[in-house]
Amino acid sequence: MTISELRTDPISGRQVLIAEDRAGRPSDFAAQELGRGEQTECPFCAGHECLTPEALFEFAGASGEWQVRVVPNKYPAVSMEQQSSLQPRTSALGATAQPPEGVHEVFIESPRHVQDITELSSVELALVLRAYRERLRFWSTDECVQHATIFKNVGVAAGASLEHVHSQLLALPNIPPMLAAEMESSQRYYADKKVCVFCQLIEEELTHRQRLVVDAGSFVAFCAYAGRQPFETWILPRKHSARFDHLSDEDTVALAEILQQIVGRLQAQLSPLSYNLILHTAPFSQRHVASYHWHFELVPRSTTLAGFEWGTGMFINPLSPERAAGRLCVE
Amino acid sequence: MTISELRTDPISGRQVLIAEDRAGRPSDFAAQELGRGEQTECPFCAGHECLTPEALFEFAGASGEWQVRVVPNKYPAVSMEQQSSLQPRTSALGATAQPPEGVHEVFIESPRHVQDITELSSVELALVLRAYRERLRFWSTDECVQHATIFKNVGVAAGASLEHVHSQLLALPNIPPMLAAEMESSQRYYADKKVCVFCQLIEEELTHRQRLVVDAGSFVAFCAYAGRQPFETWILPRKHSARFDHLSDEDTVALAEILQQIVGRLQAQLSPLSYNLILHTAPFSQRHVASYHWHFELVPRSTTLAGFEWGTGMFINPLSPERAAGRLCVE
Repeated sequence: MTISELRTDPISGRQVLIAEDRAGRPSDFAAQELGRGEQTECPFCAGHECLTPEALFEFAGASGEWQVRVVPNKYPAVSMEQQSSLQPRTSALGATAQPPEGVHEVFIESPRHVQDITELSSVELALVLRAYRERLRFWSTDECVQHATIFKNVGVAAGASLEHVHSQLLALPNIPPMLAAEMESSQRYYADKKVCVFCQLIEEELTHRQRLVVDAGSFVAFCAYAGRQPFETWILPRKHSARFDHLSDEDTVALAEILQQIVGRLQAQLSPLSYNLILHTAPFSQRHVASYHWHFELVPRSTTLAGFEWGTGMFINPLSPERAAGRLCVE
Repeated sequence: MTISELRTDPISGRQVLIAEDRAGRPSDFAAQELGRGEQTECPFCAGHECLTPEALFEFAGASGEWQVRVVPNKYPAVSMEQQSSLQPRTSALGATAQPPEGVHEVFIESPRHVQDITELSSVELALVLRAYRERLRFWSTDECVQHATIFKNVGVAAGASLEHVHSQLLALPNIPPMLAAEMESSQRYYADKKVCVFCQLIEEELTHRQRLVVDAGSFVAFCAYAGRQPFETWILPRKHSARFDHLSDEDTVALAEILQQIVGRLQAQLSPLSYNLILHTAPFSQRHVASYHWHFELVPRSTTLAGFEWGTGMFINPLSPERAAGRLCVE
């Protein structure tokens, strides 16, 4: 019997999903590493729909064929279905185990077998962003989940297992630790200064311009002041907005263009480019929170976390965000 | 001019060392990846001492040649030397920048070009552990540092840049975030229960034996209940002890044997084996703290942290610690 549970370490408080069912999931990269000449069939390509669970949501193109397809993750890290008979338990030490509840979906971002968003048209990518919005709206009214993260893994160094352009939604009954820390800190800032810390950050970055990468209409992008990896870039709406699912249709196109522009510039700096793109958006219970501001964090993965990071909880970044921004702004 | 500073992100509170000087450090693995046929000279081999800074400490063998050699890291992440003219500063947002103060040393664990501790005799490895102890004792009386972490990166997936068997000491003027969290949680437990949480954990693990890997005299090893990676194993002294530098000579030999035994078993499970070994020990100001218990955390690196981990602060482990322990205990 495989074990699937969410455990909390009694000493560090770290949350770990023990997810043995996921060990069996397919991998394009493992196949390459093993030197297999032939890829197995890509489950995300048009015509292979039978290799994935049934679609939860689709956007169709002019021809009626799907352009973006959302399916349940076949190897979910979390699930709403009754997991065995696991009862939440707490040891005398304070170690806890809970059923790994939640929702794990996959956005198949194109019917074509392309590997990155730069191979989509901006209209196609805008449709993907609208699919994000639709799924967030869908889950926002479900009482079983409090928050959803959307993320994308591109390249083997970023933990991708399939190369076909895709991203994932993870909705959880609790607010994940990283977002909880951001919410708390931004609420504290707001209580003190009566202004959103992200709005202030945007203003500072636009004033100094030392880390600015893109300043285009509704969105701004800059290298993060304390970026964990070389070229870590944040993309934010200029106007205060706590939740991504409030995004307008018009802005999905503008945002798509900026994302493609940044990924294109990163590809010119890092080859091969592996990265994680992570959407940070306020919990579903908070419709118009004044203290939080949705944003994307784009983290290229060019250095390996080593004993230093695993042992201290700190990061080492060998390229200053100022120099990184300078390189990304050279056309 | 290169930038070296310790930055704190105003929103997440994350600490990041911006360390541009480290970008130039040599790498055995980069050379391999680039397909260079010939390695450059290994700076850690006997006879190449001129390629490293002067030794801070050495243990000599019977023949008078060095067996373990401690040198300053040539590409330090932190340093006590005056770093440019950087003054600590805090932005209006609460983002801080400080000089990256501290000590960064390297333990060269053998004069021979071997790659892992299983290629040393247990007497040789015991000498390495005594070198750890000596350097910790040395820094424990220095008022400029509060705490030291010792860690080892083995294999490219664990962030190693040189393959010659070695480890690193990082002493900081502050307690790093991960240790601070452990100290706080264990102090809270002690205040409540009047017993060390690690002592209790050892007792639980020895009673249930579900995750037990080694139970040998002075030391015990088990797979961590909420292990972040498959086969994450913790090694602890059975008798309460907050600081590694209180270890006896006799125990360095017993500990060396256990570490070699565990790494040997891991090599049989994961090939190639990449891992981080991290020493967690109490801050220097706390000589006989009843609530903390030094230990090693051995984290094999077989899965890649992806958007899930970078976006939520949680971990996914596809192998339960119970099953991992079962595999490590099959002889």
